[in-house]
Amino acid sequence: MHQFRNDYSEGAAPEVLDALLRTNGEQTPGYGADEHCAHAAELIREACGRPDAYVRFIPGGTAVNAMCISAFTDDFEGPILAADAHPTAHETGAIEACGRRILATNDPFGVLTPSEVERVYREHVAGGCHATRPAMLYLSNTSELGHVYTRAEFDALCDIAADLNLAVYMDGARMASALTAPGNDLTLEHLASRADAFTLGGTKAGMLFGEALVMSPRSDRGQRAIERIPYLTKRAGHMTAKGRLMGVQYEAAFDPDLRNEEGLLPYFAHARRANACAVQLAAGLEAAGFEPYVRTNGNQQFFWFDAALGGRVAQACGAELTPAVDPTGHDRIVLRFVTSWATQPEHVEELLTALADL
Amino acid sequence: MHQFRNDYSEGAAPEVLDALLRTNGEQTPGYGADEHCAHAAELIREACGRPDAYVRFIPGGTAVNAMCISAFTDDFEGPILAADAHPTAHETGAIEACGRRILATNDPFGVLTPSEVERVYREHVAGGCHATRPAMLYLSNTSELGHVYTRAEFDALCDIAADLNLAVYMDGARMASALTAPGNDLTLEHLASRADAFTLGGTKAGMLFGEALVMSPRSDRGQRAIERIPYLTKRAGHMTAKGRLMGVQYEAAFDPDLRNEEGLLPYFAHARRANACAVQLAAGLEAAGFEPYVRTNGNQQFFWFDAALGGRVAQACGAELTPAVDPTGHDRIVLRFVTSWATQPEHVEELLTALADL
Amino acid sequence: MHQFRNDYSEGAAPEVLDALLRTNGEQTPGYGADEHCAHAAELIREACGRPDAYVRFIPGGTAVNAMCISAFTDDFEGPILAADAHPTAHETGAIEACGRRILATNDPFGVLTPSEVERVYREHVAGGCHATRPAMLYLSNTSELGHVYTRAEFDALCDIAADLNLAVYMDGARMASALTAPGNDLTLEHLASRADAFTLGGTKAGMLFGEALVMSPRSDRGQRAIERIPYLTKRAGHMTAKGRLMGVQYEAAFDPDLRNEEGLLPYFAHARRANACAVQLAAGLEAAGFEPYVRTNGNQQFFWFDAALGGRVAQACGAELTPAVDPTGHDRIVLRFVTSWATQPEHVEELLTALADL
Amino acid sequence: MHQFRNDYSEGAAPEVLDALLRTNGEQTPGYGADEHCAHAAELIREACGRPDAYVRFIPGGTAVNAMCISAFTDDFEGPILAADAHPTAHETGAIEACGRRILATNDPFGVLTPSEVERVYREHVAGGCHATRPAMLYLSNTSELGHVYTRAEFDALCDIAADLNLAVYMDGARMASALTAPGNDLTLEHLASRADAFTLGGTKAGMLFGEALVMSPRSDRGQRAIERIPYLTKRAGHMTAKGRLMGVQYEAAFDPDLRNEEGLLPYFAHARRANACAVQLAAGLEAAGFEPYVRTNGNQQFFWFDAALGGRVAQACGAELTPAVDPTGHDRIVLRFVTSWATQPEHVEELLTALADL
Repeated sequence: MHQFRNDYSEGAAPEVLDALLRTNGEQTPGYGADEHCAHAAELIREACGRPDAYVRFIPGGTAVNAMCISAFTDDFEGPILAADAHPTAHETGAIEACGRRILATNDPFGVLTPSEVERVYREHVAGGCHATRPAMLYLSNTSELGHVYTRAEFDALCDIAADLNLAVYMDGARMASALTAPGNDLTLEHLASRADAFTLGGTKAGMLFGEALVMSPRSDRGQRAIERIPYLTKRAGHMTAKGRLMGVQYEAAFDPDLRNEEGLLPYFAHARRANACAVQLAAGLEAAGFEPYVRTNGNQQFFWFDAALGGRVAQACGAELTPAVDPTGHDRIVLRFVTSWATQPEHVEELLTALADL
Repeated sequence: MHQFRNDYSEGAAPEVLDALLRTNGEQTPGYGADEHCAHAAELIREACGRPDAYVRFIPGGTAVNAMCISAFTDDFEGPILAADAHPTAHETGAIEACGRRILATNDPFGVLTPSEVERVYREHVAGGCHATRPAMLYLSNTSELGHVYTRAEFDALCDIAADLNLAVYMDGARMASALTAPGNDLTLEHLASRADAFTLGGTKAGMLFGEALVMSPRSDRGQRAIERIPYLTKRAGHMTAKGRLMGVQYEAAFDPDLRNEEGLLPYFAHARRANACAVQLAAGLEAAGFEPYVRTNGNQQFFWFDAALGGRVAQACGAELTPAVDPTGHDRIVLRFVTSWATQPEHVEELLTALADL
Repeated sequence: MHQFRNDYSEGAAPEVLDALLRTNGEQTPGYGADEHCAHAAELIREACGRPDAYVRFIPGGTAVNAMCISAFTDDFEGPILAADAHPTAHETGAIEACGRRILATNDPFGVLTPSEVERVYREHVAGGCHATRPAMLYLSNTSELGHVYTRAEFDALCDIAADLNLAVYMDGARMASALTAPGNDLTLEHLASRADAFTLGGTKAGMLFGEALVMSPRSDRGQRAIERIPYLTKRAGHMTAKGRLMGVQYEAAFDPDLRNEEGLLPYFAHARRANACAVQLAAGLEAAGFEPYVRTNGNQQFFWFDAALGGRVAQACGAELTPAVDPTGHDRIVLRFVTSWATQPEHVEELLTALADL
Repeated sequence: MHQFRNDYSEGAAPEVLDALLRTNGEQTPGYGADEHCAHAAELIREACGRPDAYVRFIPGGTAVNAMCISAFTDDFEGPILAADAHPTAHETGAIEACGRRILATNDPFGVLTPSEVERVYREHVAGGCHATRPAMLYLSNTSELGHVYTRAEFDALCDIAADLNLAVYMDGARMASALTAPGNDLTLEHLASRADAFTLGGTKAGMLFGEALVMSPRSDRGQRAIERIPYLTKRAGHMTAKGRLMGVQYEAAFDPDLRNEEGLLPYFAHARRANACAVQLAAGLEAAGFEPYVRTNGNQQFFWFDAALGGRVAQACGAELTPAVDPTGHDRIVLRFVTSWATQPEHVEELLTALADL
């Protein structure tokens, strides 16, 4: 059966693989100083509507988070983020390995809010040099639990960040999913116009590896961060020798000639289909009486199961356990189902059908 | 014209690319916990003749050096290495970013010697807790300037390391070239029997990316380093989500069914051909009256040129400038020519012919 | 008026100052390798009833916390501690500067509990190499809000730590106060028999500077941590050149010939008097109708005040604001009053009298 | 016999000790935010002739070096310094613990020269983001081997630093000795007018502990470094709770009312006497036929001895072994003799007399 374990289970989407094959024999300079990276960056700038944006490709998500947070912070500064964001829960102290302290809010479900941002900010600034100095916001879209930030939510965070002189960084490991989720009203152009930095993740969007880090030079702190990124990246071992591989993949994913019938670039077209499969799955599960843990239109879906059944479902389709406390006091568990560029509607049907017999 | 800039200018060797294509649609667990990585590790253990070896795939060379040096050292310990080794010259402080201090010898040309190892060791140990404690040797094979360590040189370093209770780590970003260089007498089996750790580099040996780190569990320090590697790797952002991509590539490169007519695995067959092209180039350059900077049988060749001609050669074939002081007092420069899995004898001939007209 | 700002407002207690004067002209080896440090360590071992204990003097509290936590953790490990413990709130990321990630519980009022320790432990261990590995407990006695750990509380934490194979470190910046607080039933001997490490703080107990770190060699992890401490201390710049100054001060503070009429060493005699003054102050405040924020018998007292009056009190006696949310919804603030070796009962009376007119 | 081991063997000079005694009972704010620190800073600014200088007290020499180097460098930058400077040889990787890489020159005897500065600078800048970026010069006055930098040497280093846009930091753990050494022509005023930062060391100049870091705000990088120092200091555990102790000591050492008959402040008067004793000792040793290792007028003297006699001398007066290779091929050793504020001419006579019988 098709597995719903995660969105990095398979290799590359067809157009990405084709591009890698087609360019395999080329000889190019190393470390990203090649024409493919330059062209891919240009295509991303166009998609963002920001001719001035700085774009750099970094191989993985934990890596790009550590690099970007380092770039926007001084040794004694840190990012404000929601308590269960990726850097706190799944990165083995990657930010702390850079000497930075994370300033976590108490926001539930990992959705950052302006009021918590302000509380954490005030608390730390009051400590003067005896406390870590807040320097930026970190949020991920979609979040760990699939939250798709609305434009209003994003703007409210940008507003408080502007008031407090904090940079805004949006981790977009699943940005393709977020920006194409049903009901989403945040555009790439708007994101690019207000965030200091964000990523357009490739690994979970049909590439072998690679995250595109997009940074705004429209502030002194942005310019300084941009200047720092190449050094930080090399120093941390994240400057890929055959760096053009990322350029080649993003060229394909953002190739205007490969827009689909809806006009979507391949990068977004895959995500929209993955979202549709996820929503189809959620609808099927609810129709079958299962209760969602959180509601989301992204490519991750979270549902409650009785422990025994949940175990069988996980076994069958690879869905992973998500830590959660059952408010009803029963012995239920939450499973996460993830769709990818490779998931098809018939895979969802197969799973929903199979569920009846588990 | 074919470029001799470096050995990471092209994509993947044919059998590696085929394997990536063939497995692209598979769904596997992430982060290297898949069957391909397991199988590739098994093939490497077999090639090394060490069923007990621990094998892990890490995406790049700077990364694997930082991980392995961290794994074998405590916060206040450091590696002894030759002054112009890769970590001192080309990694932007990657080792220091891990909080470790490098203890450099005065060995000329970057070839580590037992006497310098002992001198540096004694000097630091004499300082007690006021000096960084030496914990390991780092050497690269081939070295930055193409040195191929002989078995006797390697054994002498292992002997002094054993006397001083230091771990031995050999950076093998170009190990395939070293072990197949004409005149080399160090075998993979012997290396694996004495080193605490070494790498079998993939990036410069026909893969898209990836270094295989091989570690010996036959000491307490080895076991401790092995236990530490997964955590250190994740923390530093070097645990690739689609980790199976490295397993797939190494499966192909070490596939016994793909041995060539000489019985070489693809990994070594490509390197032998690259070495042969490099030696052919060196012979041609010497025949044309050019003087080598150092003599080596590996896939890098270093030659003196008058500055003007050197500039034209670099322009034509991508050869890079290597910092060197001309002992004759003239204004000469050293160029480095590098061959790869993609270099063919006719590319060398083309270059030698073209040289006459530059 | 005498200031109740903190317990490091004044210089040294009389016997400590005398000892510094008496030994000023002596010539001794540097960096703590002198007879005074050796003798002071011996006196501390005797007071602890642990002839095997390792004792080292480190100049400050933030420093000794960072050193001890580093000594007991690997790069990718961290301490479990209560959310508002000193390292999270007042050390500007000192632990993170060592590359370590702090694992905070949700315990209210900063009092660490076994159930939260276990929850945090399980959550992180479940993440395998994708999460920071818990290695130790950190707790402070008295805590930031003055909690005096009972023997039963301490034992319960030691029990869960033993079950989970975690080291136990008790930060004793205010240990003198804790161990002499009315109602305290934890003895130094018992503490020393179960903790892997603890400090007997000097800075807040009548010395110019200095914290005595006491470590148990009765485990492999303890021995390893002990071996690491001198290197870590020197590397972090915490190895005082005139290290004997700490030895001299602790010799005086733990001089058996200077026991008071109750048989208390000067170190504890000062603390008992400071505690008595603090309790006297608390009783007076309650009698005057003020409400305590938390109840404690240590040398810190926390009371609610209407904002305006609180401001005047702070102005008069140096009491500092402690962040707190008023559960009654009024605009009240919490002030912290701290007594020291220099505080006398008449100072307390003076303050209580003055309060009536503020 | 008086020991010539080092200049931190004794406690505090008389006027410093008096000041500590006189102020012991005062209650002041902690962490250096007190009137004594403010006044001491003002006295230092006056002595430097720089009303705009920023002054901060940090407890030790390794600490202040790490703080100042961190303050002037980004994560991926490093200081250029002579190969055997204190941070490379005696600090257990303190700079690397801050994540910074040291860029060492090949200057012999630890005396930094403009030509080596330029060579190291060019070599690293050529590497772009693949090499650590040079950001500052570090030199110590007097140096490890007692070199007293002349005004011309200092100016030449400042000139090349200005050309290359590098900050200049002079480690003055023994600055009092340097500025009062016979033949010295570098004034404190001139130093303060050109250096970005320097220290006026207290520990080796008659204080219990403390180094005064003096920084220039007359550049953007200086202002940025000044802003960073309090945070970095707290984060590294170097912000002393009873910080006023350093203020009190420097107030005494720089008290204009305590100038000696020559008009020297106590800080310099002690150093001049220590230098005179050292020069007296060197003259006596040369008169007795011993050969200096290096010539210096500072408070450290280095002399060759036959190994056996050297051992007896070291035993008698505490002189320490300095690593050196005997150019004559004999089995000689170098001993270092150090004088301090406590050394008197008769101590020197006693040693010279005793030497005859060893």
